[in-house]
Amino acid sequence: MGLVVQKYGGTSVADAERIRAVADHVARTRRTGEDVVVVVSAMGKTTDDLLRLASDVSAVQPGRELDMLLTAGERISMALLCMALAELGVASASFTGSQAGIITDGHHTNAKILEVRGDRLREALAAGVVPVVAGFQGVSLDRDVTTLGRGGSDTTAVALAAALGATTCEIYTDVTGVFSADPRVVPEARRLRRVSFEEMLEIAATGGRVLALRSVEFARNHRVPLHVRSSFTWEPGTWVTEEVPDMEQAIVSAVTSDASEAKLTISGVPDRPGIAASLFRALADAAVNVDMIVQNTSHDGTTDISFTVPHTALKTALAIVGELAPKIDAGSVLADEDVAQVSLVGAGMKTNPGVTAKMFEALAGEQINIEMISTSPIRVSCMVRAGLAERAVRVLHQAFGLEG
Amino acid sequence: MGLVVQKYGGTSVADAERIRAVADHVARTRRTGEDVVVVVSAMGKTTDDLLRLASDVSAVQPGRELDMLLTAGERISMALLCMALAELGVASASFTGSQAGIITDGHHTNAKILEVRGDRLREALAAGVVPVVAGFQGVSLDRDVTTLGRGGSDTTAVALAAALGATTCEIYTDVTGVFSADPRVVPEARRLRRVSFEEMLEIAATGGRVLALRSVEFARNHRVPLHVRSSFTWEPGTWVTEEVPDMEQAIVSAVTSDASEAKLTISGVPDRPGIAASLFRALADAAVNVDMIVQNTSHDGTTDISFTVPHTALKTALAIVGELAPKIDAGSVLADEDVAQVSLVGAGMKTNPGVTAKMFEALAGEQINIEMISTSPIRVSCMVRAGLAERAVRVLHQAFGLEG
Repeated sequence: MGLVVQKYGGTSVADAERIRAVADHVARTRRTGEDVVVVVSAMGKTTDDLLRLASDVSAVQPGRELDMLLTAGERISMALLCMALAELGVASASFTGSQAGIITDGHHTNAKILEVRGDRLREALAAGVVPVVAGFQGVSLDRDVTTLGRGGSDTTAVALAAALGATTCEIYTDVTGVFSADPRVVPEARRLRRVSFEEMLEIAATGGRVLALRSVEFARNHRVPLHVRSSFTWEPGTWVTEEVPDMEQAIVSAVTSDASEAKLTISGVPDRPGIAASLFRALADAAVNVDMIVQNTSHDGTTDISFTVPHTALKTALAIVGELAPKIDAGSVLADEDVAQVSLVGAGMKTNPGVTAKMFEALAGEQINIEMISTSPIRVSCMVRAGLAERAVRVLHQAFGLEG
Repeated sequence: MGLVVQKYGGTSVADAERIRAVADHVARTRRTGEDVVVVVSAMGKTTDDLLRLASDVSAVQPGRELDMLLTAGERISMALLCMALAELGVASASFTGSQAGIITDGHHTNAKILEVRGDRLREALAAGVVPVVAGFQGVSLDRDVTTLGRGGSDTTAVALAAALGATTCEIYTDVTGVFSADPRVVPEARRLRRVSFEEMLEIAATGGRVLALRSVEFARNHRVPLHVRSSFTWEPGTWVTEEVPDMEQAIVSAVTSDASEAKLTISGVPDRPGIAASLFRALADAAVNVDMIVQNTSHDGTTDISFTVPHTALKTALAIVGELAPKIDAGSVLADEDVAQVSLVGAGMKTNPGVTAKMFEALAGEQINIEMISTSPIRVSCMVRAGLAERAVRVLHQAFGLEG
């Protein structure tokens, strides 16, 4: 039998009863003969509570101290899970990110994993002990506590699965898998049995909330098969693998939307080499995550560049762009927060040119104006007014026959 | 200027406002030119909350996991304090027990400090950074997280003060110092300006709650002057030093009482060498903390041995003694939980034989029966019915004129 890494998110360990249910499932997995490494998030709203406490105490929150604060969360959930496992007679031991050998760079609150030194976990497994590892956290080469940022626990799980040679990384969450659209928006949305890493990357990047983009990238790069499933129903969920999709799979897999970003437009940008580079270098240096970038062909030697950034980074981005625009002889800078991006994702898309046309027709039929377009081989994204995003998702889901 | 270690207990960092007040005091101390190392406990009732959570999750609570769980508490308070210091412009950095180099044995939930590797703290101090250290916690030679048991944060503070050569270890708490009796029992109780290590040891050992015995032992062994004071009034409190008491100091310093222990009596114990040793070795091996031991001269080749143990250890102690008694040909074993110990502590006591007599007379005058007596050069302790303890404290406080 092989090794499986099981990751339990915050809702899966939200209270004593949930923790006991998770312990029971780990015990059952062990009884099948498989080795298990467990990765846990902080319980329920712990992280939010700690952040609120920090705001109450101080307006200044150094990253090093934020990391120290937040890593208290997983300590609590993993110790409690080990106790619940002990009551079931399953030998287990908790490991902090540092103890589990998750070595990161020193970028506090958003560290990158440099290396996984899995010796202690391997020793535990060899001794028949189930390692319960704190997700989201690591230790820098300077021996400071770090955290991995959004989706960090998923990344921990995938990194451990890769380092320890696990056959599967199971991501337990509060939904039963990856859906063809958000079921709260489209009640007929269908659970996908299997998606490719590439499709999952696009779904995660365009608003699918189930998996963080980073963990999917990591899984894809290290070929770790993911199984996204529910810790409430325990039924099989969605497999994310590198396999070729089944022949009968629909061309379009999912419709996603994302209203978490604002649009910035710089008009009258001189069409010279190096201009775009200087812009996005400045944004990258300030750690602003730029998502969609659109630049049309120029007229009269100038062009407009539009791009999207998270709402939370808008202020920083505006400051940088505002300072840079005069230096590069560009014109005005406009920010628009009232936008949302609606995307169609599917592995079969690039060989089916009709998909894009059908998408635009469906949106036009609902009088939904498309303000920006960006595509990849397996995705088409349209920027629309934020208030129209849910309607757009519903009409596209129906137009492409994605219902179950 | 020298270095001062400041330890803040749970009530001193109980909420955001208290944490900001502590930050303000640390900043003020720094402005006097002194270097500061801060040691913090978990906020208010955090530890109790975590223990309740553990009970909700599981009846089985391995020590290693309890330690992992509880050490979340100081992480939160120290990170928040660093944020509050940052807002005041004071450079600081938090350190876990492990990062601060508190190396312990592997005895989970009650580990002993083996060594303090203070390099990282010294580096921080040299860089002008205030180290904020998690009290109560350490790391074992096996790299597991450990905790130091009751009074552990005081012990951390004293150990750091010793290792770093601090001039003073300030223990900030919710009372203004060490008193001649518990002010809740004796409203006239007087704050002591100065007590010797030996007196403080006896006060701590016999029910004075302000300082944990262990930290006083550590301070005495390493000659670390303690200053016990309030983080609510910030006024000077009680100094605990090795200096000779002032000439005018009263012979008796304080009256204490302790109802946290039960009495065990083994009757008809054969008066042979090695019997007591086998008894107390068995208790020690089970980590039962035996406090007062009384054995009278024997009659007819047998004697009675009485001793006290914490209520929490009574069940374990009874099991051990019950098993051992027949093996050593002893008679019955009796447990009495309804007892309290009342003690008189004072450095001048041993050269004043009248003190003991006066104590017994004062108790007799109130019809308080003395059930066991034990003495040290600077202490006399009497076991009385638990319900009479407070009355005993009041009458002794008055009899020895300790009021302010």
